[in-house]
Amino acid sequence: MEQRVDPDQLREQFLGQVTELLRRQKARAERAEAGALPDREQIETLLRTRELEALQRGLERLHPADVAYILEALPLDERLIVWDLVKAERDGEILLEVSDAVRETLIASMDERELVAATEQLDTDEIADLAPDLPREVIQDVFRSLSVEEREQLRAAMSYDEDSVGARMDFDMVEVREDVTLEVVLRYLRMLDELPDHTDQLFVVDRDGHLKGLLPINRLLVTPPETLVADVMLREYVQFDPHEDARDAAAAFERYDLVSAPVVDENGGLVGRMTVADVVDYIREAQTAEMLAAAGLREDEDLFASVWTSVRNRWTWLAVNLVTAFVASRVIGAFENSIAQLVALAALMPIVAGIGGNSGNQTITRIVRALAIGQITRENARQLFVKELGVSVLNGLIWGAVVGLFGFLIYHNWQLGVVLMAAMLLNLLLAAVMGVAIPLLMEKLGRDPASGSSVLITFITDSGGFFIFLGLATLFLV
Amino acid sequence: MEQRVDPDQLREQFLGQVTELLRRQKARAERAEAGALPDREQIETLLRTRELEALQRGLERLHPADVAYILEALPLDERLIVWDLVKAERDGEILLEVSDAVRETLIASMDERELVAATEQLDTDEIADLAPDLPREVIQDVFRSLSVEEREQLRAAMSYDEDSVGARMDFDMVEVREDVTLEVVLRYLRMLDELPDHTDQLFVVDRDGHLKGLLPINRLLVTPPETLVADVMLREYVQFDPHEDARDAAAAFERYDLVSAPVVDENGGLVGRMTVADVVDYIREAQTAEMLAAAGLREDEDLFASVWTSVRNRWTWLAVNLVTAFVASRVIGAFENSIAQLVALAALMPIVAGIGGNSGNQTITRIVRALAIGQITRENARQLFVKELGVSVLNGLIWGAVVGLFGFLIYHNWQLGVVLMAAMLLNLLLAAVMGVAIPLLMEKLGRDPASGSSVLITFITDSGGFFIFLGLATLFLV
Repeated sequence: MEQRVDPDQLREQFLGQVTELLRRQKARAERAEAGALPDREQIETLLRTRELEALQRGLERLHPADVAYILEALPLDERLIVWDLVKAERDGEILLEVSDAVRETLIASMDERELVAATEQLDTDEIADLAPDLPREVIQDVFRSLSVEEREQLRAAMSYDEDSVGARMDFDMVEVREDVTLEVVLRYLRMLDELPDHTDQLFVVDRDGHLKGLLPINRLLVTPPETLVADVMLREYVQFDPHEDARDAAAAFERYDLVSAPVVDENGGLVGRMTVADVVDYIREAQTAEMLAAAGLREDEDLFASVWTSVRNRWTWLAVNLVTAFVASRVIGAFENSIAQLVALAALMPIVAGIGGNSGNQTITRIVRALAIGQITRENARQLFVKELGVSVLNGLIWGAVVGLFGFLIYHNWQLGVVLMAAMLLNLLLAAVMGVAIPLLMEKLGRDPASGSSVLITFITDSGGFFIFLGLATLFLV
Repeated sequence: MEQRVDPDQLREQFLGQVTELLRRQKARAERAEAGALPDREQIETLLRTRELEALQRGLERLHPADVAYILEALPLDERLIVWDLVKAERDGEILLEVSDAVRETLIASMDERELVAATEQLDTDEIADLAPDLPREVIQDVFRSLSVEEREQLRAAMSYDEDSVGARMDFDMVEVREDVTLEVVLRYLRMLDELPDHTDQLFVVDRDGHLKGLLPINRLLVTPPETLVADVMLREYVQFDPHEDARDAAAAFERYDLVSAPVVDENGGLVGRMTVADVVDYIREAQTAEMLAAAGLREDEDLFASVWTSVRNRWTWLAVNLVTAFVASRVIGAFENSIAQLVALAALMPIVAGIGGNSGNQTITRIVRALAIGQITRENARQLFVKELGVSVLNGLIWGAVVGLFGFLIYHNWQLGVVLMAAMLLNLLLAAVMGVAIPLLMEKLGRDPASGSSVLITFITDSGGFFIFLGLATLFLV
C-alpha cells in the first residue's frame, strides 16, 4: 500500500524502534543490577526519557488500528510500556481494535478510573462491544454518565445475541422527513459538523420513528433541490431485523453491494443501521473462527499467551481425537490374530484409512460449501448423493487398483492386492455416503454443518477403513 | 433479511416454481413418447406456454445476483431453460455474478452474436473479468466496438495479474479540479444523471490526470459552498498501486474502514479506483479458494458437474496423499519383525501418529494466522518457537500419560505403556518443531504458508510417529 503517509512502513519502523529501545533499556538494567527486568518503577523513569518521547510522537501519527497491530505484535512487558505511551483519549478506540486476548491484557493493566475514561469516549454501540470484557463497576459508572436515549441504545445493543444484526449495528443515522425539499435537507446537513462514516444514504422517518424510505446521497446530489424527499426517496430496499443472523445480513451486503442498510424492529421503527465496515469485520471474524475451529483451537490466542493458556485452548480437540483414536485402536485390536498371521496387514491398513479420510473430507467440504450458499434443495439432494457415489466408485476403482498393485508388488501376494483394492473401494463408498449424510443431517438438526464434520468423517473412515480391510483379510486371506 | 420485496422468499418461491413446472413438463413428455427428456425443440414450444411467461415475469423482478443464484442451483437442462427466459439485456450482468463453473455452461449455450451483445452492455472492468471465459472472436468484436479510451482501459485491466489491485479496480470515477468552488462541483454533479455506485469521494486531479487529493462527499455536504476544493480536500490518504497484491488492499480497506480508494501509477497518474464491493468479493473468493484448497479441491465445482469432471478436480490431492501413505506404509514395513513379535504395536501405532497430526495442525494454524496478519518478526520468532515447544512438552506429558495408561490397561505390559508415552512426547515435539518451521520456511521461500502445510505436517507426524514408536519398541521391548 502506498500513501503520502505510508502506515505499513511507519508501523514496521515503529515496531523496530520499540524493540530496539527496550532491548537497550533491558541491557542497561542488567548491567546495573545483574539480570533484573525493567519493573513498573523503572518504566515510569523511562517514560521521561527523550527516546520514549520520540516514540510517543510516532504513536500519535498512527491510526488506532495500527497502534492495535503494534500492541498485538509485542510481548507482554513491552506491550504495556507502549500502552502507557498512548494518549489516554485514544485508549477506547484502540481497545476496540485489538484482539480479544490482547484486550484482556490491556484492561488488566488499567485501573477503574482509566477504564471509565476510555469507555466514555465511545459510541454506545462500541461500548456494547467492549462491555463483556469490562469489570461490572466500570460498566455501571459509564452507564450513569449516559443520556436517557443512549442508555436505551446501550441496553438494546447488549441484549442481542453476539452473532445477530442487533449486536453489530450502530446508531449513527441521519434522519429526515419526507415532506421537506432536498434544499432543506442540504441546508440541514450543512449545519452538521460532519456526517457519520459510511453515510451513503439518509433515513426517511415519520414523527413516530417509523422508516418510510431511504434517500441515497447520490440522488440528493443529482436531483433538482426543489424536489420533495417523498418524490425521490427509495421505497423498495433491503432492511434487517435486529434479531436476524449477521451472516444473512453479510450475504445480502455482498449480493447487493450495499454500503449501509436500515435495521427495523417488528413495528417498522428504525432502531439502527448496519454498515459495510461492520460486515467486513464480521466476515473476517467468522472466517478466523472457522479456520481456528477447523484445527480445534477454541479461540484466537494472544501470540504471547502463557504455555498453560495455550495448552488449555487446545485441550478439548486433542481429547476428542484421543477418544476416536482409542476406538480405532480397539478395532485393530479385534483383528490381532489376523495381523499376527499376516503382518503385511499392519503396514497396509493406514493407506486404506488415510485415503478414505481425504476423500471423505473432499465430499464434506463440497457439501458444506453448497449448504452455506444455499444451493441444496430437497429436489437436488438425491441427485448430489448419486453423483458423489459415482465419484467415489470411480475413484475407488482407480486408486484401489493403484494401491492393490502396490500391495502386490511389495508382498508378491495377489490375493492381498485384491483385498486391498476391494477395501479401498468400500471405504471410499463409506466416505461418500457419510460425507453427504453428515452435513445434511447436522443442518437438519439445526447445527452448523461445518463444525465437527471433519473429525466425524475422519473417525468413520479410520475405524471403518481398518474394519473393512482387516475384516476382508480375515475372511479371505487368513 | 426483510424487505418490501423480500428477495430470499422470491428466490425460493421461484426455484420451487421452476422445478415443479419442469417436472410436469417432463412427465408430459414421458407420457407422450416414453421416457424422452425435453429436448431443445420442446423447450422452444415450452417457451410459449403461459406458465413460462409467468416465470419470466418473476425473473424480471429479481436482482441479477438472485438470478445467478437460481441458475447455480439448477441442474444443467433446467438451468438452460431458465437462462433462455432471462431478458437478453441482462445476460452480461448475470454472467458476471455466476460462479466460474456455471458461467462456462451458460457461455457454451450461447452463440457468438448473443455473447457479443451481452458483453457490450458491460463496463470495461467487467468485460475484463469476463474475457478469460469468452471465445477469441467475441473479444475481438467487442474490442472493435469500444472507444479509444475504453480500449486503453480494457487493455490495462487485462494486463494485470488476477490477484492484483489492477485486475479488481474499476474506472467509474468522478474527477474534479482543485481550483473550483464546492458550488461549482455541486452544479457539475447535478448535471450527471446519477453517480457511480460507491461514490463516497471525488478524485481531485490536475490537467495531466495526476491525483492531487480526495474530496469526500460528506465534506462536500457540510462545507460552505463558496469554499475552494483545494482548501477542503484530503491531502493524506491511502492509495494503491495497480500491481499491488489485492490482499494488501483488502487489509487496508478493513483496517481503515474505506469505501473507495484511488489506484495510482508510478507517475502519480490516477488510473482507477477500488471499492469496498470489490474488496468484499475478493475476501469471499480468497476464503472459498482457501477452504477448497485445504481439502484438496482444485476449484469450485459446479454442483452438477459430471462425475468425471469431479474426479479430475480431486485427483491431484488424492495422488499426493497416496504417495505419503505409501511412504508411511514402508516405514511400518521396516518394523514387520517387531510387529510380528508384539502385535499390540499395530493397534497402538495409529494413536501416536494421529495425535501428533492433530497437535501439529494446531501449531501450524496458529503460525499461519500470525503470519497472515503480519505479527511474526525476526525478534519474536524464537520466542514463539520456545513457547510452542513448551506447549508440546506439556501436552506430551499429559496425553502421553493418558495413552500410556490406556496401553497398560489393555495389554497389562508396563514397559509398553512407558514406550507409548515416550513416543507420544517425542512425536508431539516433532510436530511442534515442524509446525513452526514449515510455515516460516515457506514464507521465507516466498510461497503461501497456508497451502500444503497441512499435508506436509500430517505426512511428517504420520511417518515420524510410526518410526518413533516402532523404533523405541524395537529397541526396548522386542
